[in-house]
Amino acid sequence: MPLHDTELRSFASDNYSGVHPEVLEAVAAANGGHQVSYGEDVYTERLQEVLAGHFGRPVEAFPVFNGTGANVVALQSMLPRWGAVVCSSNAHIHCDENGAPERMGGIKLLTVDVPDGKLTPDLIDQQAWGWGDEHRAQPLVVSITQTTELGTAYTPDEIGAICDHAHERGMRVHLDGARISNAAASLGVPISVFTTDVGVDVVSFGGTKNGMLMGEAVVVLDPSAAEGLKYLRKMSMQLASKMRFISAQLIALYEGDLWLRSASHANAMATRLADGVRGLPGVELTQPVEANGVFVIVPDDVTEQLRKRFRFYDWDAARGERRWMCSFDTTEADVDAFVTELRSLL
Amino acid sequence: MPLHDTELRSFASDNYSGVHPEVLEAVAAANGGHQVSYGEDVYTERLQEVLAGHFGRPVEAFPVFNGTGANVVALQSMLPRWGAVVCSSNAHIHCDENGAPERMGGIKLLTVDVPDGKLTPDLIDQQAWGWGDEHRAQPLVVSITQTTELGTAYTPDEIGAICDHAHERGMRVHLDGARISNAAASLGVPISVFTTDVGVDVVSFGGTKNGMLMGEAVVVLDPSAAEGLKYLRKMSMQLASKMRFISAQLIALYEGDLWLRSASHANAMATRLADGVRGLPGVELTQPVEANGVFVIVPDDVTEQLRKRFRFYDWDAARGERRWMCSFDTTEADVDAFVTELRSLL
Amino acid sequence: MPLHDTELRSFASDNYSGVHPEVLEAVAAANGGHQVSYGEDVYTERLQEVLAGHFGRPVEAFPVFNGTGANVVALQSMLPRWGAVVCSSNAHIHCDENGAPERMGGIKLLTVDVPDGKLTPDLIDQQAWGWGDEHRAQPLVVSITQTTELGTAYTPDEIGAICDHAHERGMRVHLDGARISNAAASLGVPISVFTTDVGVDVVSFGGTKNGMLMGEAVVVLDPSAAEGLKYLRKMSMQLASKMRFISAQLIALYEGDLWLRSASHANAMATRLADGVRGLPGVELTQPVEANGVFVIVPDDVTEQLRKRFRFYDWDAARGERRWMCSFDTTEADVDAFVTELRSLL
Amino acid sequence: MPLHDTELRSFASDNYSGVHPEVLEAVAAANGGHQVSYGEDVYTERLQEVLAGHFGRPVEAFPVFNGTGANVVALQSMLPRWGAVVCSSNAHIHCDENGAPERMGGIKLLTVDVPDGKLTPDLIDQQAWGWGDEHRAQPLVVSITQTTELGTAYTPDEIGAICDHAHERGMRVHLDGARISNAAASLGVPISVFTTDVGVDVVSFGGTKNGMLMGEAVVVLDPSAAEGLKYLRKMSMQLASKMRFISAQLIALYEGDLWLRSASHANAMATRLADGVRGLPGVELTQPVEANGVFVIVPDDVTEQLRKRFRFYDWDAARGERRWMCSFDTTEADVDAFVTELRSLL
Repeated sequence: MPLHDTELRSFASDNYSGVHPEVLEAVAAANGGHQVSYGEDVYTERLQEVLAGHFGRPVEAFPVFNGTGANVVALQSMLPRWGAVVCSSNAHIHCDENGAPERMGGIKLLTVDVPDGKLTPDLIDQQAWGWGDEHRAQPLVVSITQTTELGTAYTPDEIGAICDHAHERGMRVHLDGARISNAAASLGVPISVFTTDVGVDVVSFGGTKNGMLMGEAVVVLDPSAAEGLKYLRKMSMQLASKMRFISAQLIALYEGDLWLRSASHANAMATRLADGVRGLPGVELTQPVEANGVFVIVPDDVTEQLRKRFRFYDWDAARGERRWMCSFDTTEADVDAFVTELRSLL
Repeated sequence: MPLHDTELRSFASDNYSGVHPEVLEAVAAANGGHQVSYGEDVYTERLQEVLAGHFGRPVEAFPVFNGTGANVVALQSMLPRWGAVVCSSNAHIHCDENGAPERMGGIKLLTVDVPDGKLTPDLIDQQAWGWGDEHRAQPLVVSITQTTELGTAYTPDEIGAICDHAHERGMRVHLDGARISNAAASLGVPISVFTTDVGVDVVSFGGTKNGMLMGEAVVVLDPSAAEGLKYLRKMSMQLASKMRFISAQLIALYEGDLWLRSASHANAMATRLADGVRGLPGVELTQPVEANGVFVIVPDDVTEQLRKRFRFYDWDAARGERRWMCSFDTTEADVDAFVTELRSLL
Repeated sequence: MPLHDTELRSFASDNYSGVHPEVLEAVAAANGGHQVSYGEDVYTERLQEVLAGHFGRPVEAFPVFNGTGANVVALQSMLPRWGAVVCSSNAHIHCDENGAPERMGGIKLLTVDVPDGKLTPDLIDQQAWGWGDEHRAQPLVVSITQTTELGTAYTPDEIGAICDHAHERGMRVHLDGARISNAAASLGVPISVFTTDVGVDVVSFGGTKNGMLMGEAVVVLDPSAAEGLKYLRKMSMQLASKMRFISAQLIALYEGDLWLRSASHANAMATRLADGVRGLPGVELTQPVEANGVFVIVPDDVTEQLRKRFRFYDWDAARGERRWMCSFDTTEADVDAFVTELRSLL
Repeated sequence: MPLHDTELRSFASDNYSGVHPEVLEAVAAANGGHQVSYGEDVYTERLQEVLAGHFGRPVEAFPVFNGTGANVVALQSMLPRWGAVVCSSNAHIHCDENGAPERMGGIKLLTVDVPDGKLTPDLIDQQAWGWGDEHRAQPLVVSITQTTELGTAYTPDEIGAICDHAHERGMRVHLDGARISNAAASLGVPISVFTTDVGVDVVSFGGTKNGMLMGEAVVVLDPSAAEGLKYLRKMSMQLASKMRFISAQLIALYEGDLWLRSASHANAMATRLADGVRGLPGVELTQPVEANGVFVIVPDDVTEQLRKRFRFYDWDAARGERRWMCSFDTTEADVDAFVTELRSLL
């Protein structure tokens, strides 16, 4: 018996949602009998093929528990002990992981302010310098987030320019793809088009936010960019004993088109939501809606009223900016009710 | 469709097994609708009550992903930066976690050789000294494993003696309870009897090995023994966004008697297995069978033949010692087939 | 026999200079016989009294090898594992220590851009928020540098305002005093006036840059602000075995007025240098000269010529900004020769 | 004016002594004028040649502050993040550095009990296994101490056997040479004979215990064995700004024969001491005296009396074992007075 109202949804985060029924079925199907633990199972083996399909080449995929784990394991594998990461000042690794990269990985982050969540070669150059100077943490990786923390999506060309710029300077490129499905859905291209094809080296490959119970994967596109991943995953406490159940979920999501159906739907709901509020008095969209999130200024008093029925987070409370997230299970009715409520409050 | 033979089981490890059907049902029941992420959900709230019941007092339970995570988070919360842990030289934290306590937690382990896997006050004293000496990592926690890595179970009195000894010296006691259910089943007492009642401070509370998909919990019995757990869990990459699904599994296991049924069954299968091979020529049980593992010397040639049908690990290859583990899903037929095969090979 | 020209001096850094003769005499005087190692010597004991005099109260002073060591040891003692430091984006701990705070101390730095090197309560508030939110590294220390990396000096009132602001929010204040003598000389007040009296909790107390061979000290003004310092110093590789020789140097510098004579002189030389170039065509002082450093824009071609005779560093090469540092041993003749050369090149 | 009795010496530790006058003269000679900081000075350059002479090949020498710093910097340079070190259970890195290797370097130590302080290939094999197993910290370095913590000296052949054994297994060899001079003096061979010539990869090269104020060096014999040393030294807080003064001391010690004179003398004093007490009733030498330390059982009551005049440490209080250390400045009169006192007490 559930302890909660299984019909109540919010606009707080895509991780408020549960598991997609097809993913849960896959878990059940992977049950029974014994499988070798710690990743030597047939599901994890199969996963390699599934992801090779998405990335357009053989890859090494290392399932892990969560996004912070994927990021910290990936970055450790890409960096010597003296390495640093150039990233956006609103990157998840900088703002939302309580210093996990620094504390667990000994990694220095060199941040750059980015108005729309996207790094560019010029912005990267604010921090990409000082190689050979022992006093400066050596900037050897650029980390970008796709889709960004601000709901925007890099185009393949934008990522390509970053990769070229980084590689010319001896740096590697990490892509935090907690919402990589939303990006592909938004851009209307296969995942490989904005990763493998343009030079991304290592990906934190998202699963949880797109309908899994839990689970992500570190996916190595260029084996020369990452070292010791199996050891790093274990020592970083990210090695699942019953890994078949993470791999089976990832297979369920990515073997067919479930990943795309779900992400496209979430994106569509965000667009519907943005369309429903655009132009309302006192309401201002602050970012283009290119994925499943809407960033919007709403007056404080209206926000307070709106929250009596719907949960969501402030993004920048000082300027009245809110973040509304849609999920694979957000319905048109959810969106419409929300818009109606907002309109009635204005 | 499963990719594997769902009827094939081995004696390699209790984490080769899958998920108990009742646990999987609980996951399905917790699905649907939105729940606040990162632990502010009703399942995690309910879990506090369930575990309070087992420990006989209000506790703080912090669900995490896996056993290594539970141990490293727990030990960090119990120790200052200069602290050290006295543990057995065959402790999981020392042998099987690729240095996670040292690397992620900056924790020094001070090990003691223990023939049967059990520390004692006298053995602890081999390392419990040097407080105030800045050159020595300060021994401030004793960590014991219940049931031990050698399949033995501490009695409540044995743990009580350790706790008294540690507390008298200003040390705290951590219990690695990856198989805590098997211990309770073996001893025939509630979990509180060998934890809360005798002075254990913090427990790594097991779930995965007893039939969960994945998930454990750090359970704080004495709040004065652990600090900053919520921060440590996050920065240690052990905070699940969709935590309801870990908590729901733990509830399914521990709310009723599923934990005890499953552990008792696994223990019984190990006993049946030991009984079936005891006294066979060249076969020697090396440890008392007090839980779900059998430690046994079997000649190399026989072992080689036996492995053609059944998978299991060497414990000490040099002396021909093997480890056979039983699980919640091990059947009497599995055991009997194994014994029959071994007998036929001798 | 020296291998170098003992009469050649530059304007590159105050750590290009050697040791003050009076300090070297003190080292010689402390030699001979045996003294207990690792700090239980009479010089380290005497040092406590000397520094108590400067800070106006009993203090705990922990001699260490260098400034990075002082900072990382101090910050570890002031922070739990989940703590973060609010500091300027040009703080030495952020820019010049190759991530030592992050890598060795597991400390997250939260940086704020400051035009003149000085934090203020308002600027601190850009990062001082989010207490209790486990996703955010907890801002529990403010670290300021006195004099700043830009050659400016906080007034006692400015530091007091920062301390009050921090303390009201449960934060502690660390002062990186690599050039604390220059600050006191600049302000014309005892050291206590801008530390103890206004609420600073822990100081990285400088020695090397003001005429020591090597050596600094972590000085704890409020014992409740710092924990485990003796252990942290040892495990951070900052515990000198023959500590008497660091302590004897610190005594030589701070027992009488050598510290003040030396710092005042270095400051005066910087002022003389600034006065000598102020108003020259194409030359622009970018910061007030409040200590021993001059920050100045000089055209690239002139800089190139000037460097044929005098070594100094760029501060911001993109805008033609240079940094000229004076030391205890900089002479008026050195300054005048430098000014004359610059004038002749313009 | 000295604050202490410059004629009083003890047998507690070789780091109770001060600085050799010739070393102090070298510091004075290196003073005056400006030298580039952080190691780009002519003394550090000259040091490379001096040490190349001792090791019989070009080396890279990185001066650092102290022995713990040398060890932790060296080991980090030799190991990936997942590496482990096989060492003796009484190694300084394990017993006397408060977990610095683990806490600062994230390094796991795998210890072996050694009765006389010396590892052997067989003993190493107790821990040198499990490569490729992600659950086990990967043993990739063997660390030996020369002379050992028990006052014994490895022969060149013994070290050669260890190096061959390690290299065959893909492991590197680190030598903690805090007392490397005493070893050379004891063996009567150049330093190269038991390092370079037999395959040692990286050395923690001692200075402090043999008459320096403070200072050691990481010396890389095989550049392929160590990576990133300059970055590691800085981020490990071991980069001296006025490095000329460490290098000048090392040059003073090692350019001529001061190192050998001093170490030979200290060794001879230990031999004289051992000879003076050998065979006394209740007195038992527990280790061969091969360097500057004497390990000896003396009854508790006699020890108590002896300590009224002479300071020294217990080594194993439980069995009445004491450690008496001689230094470069220990005199024959010191030894004779000690022996006379002991004889009178028996």
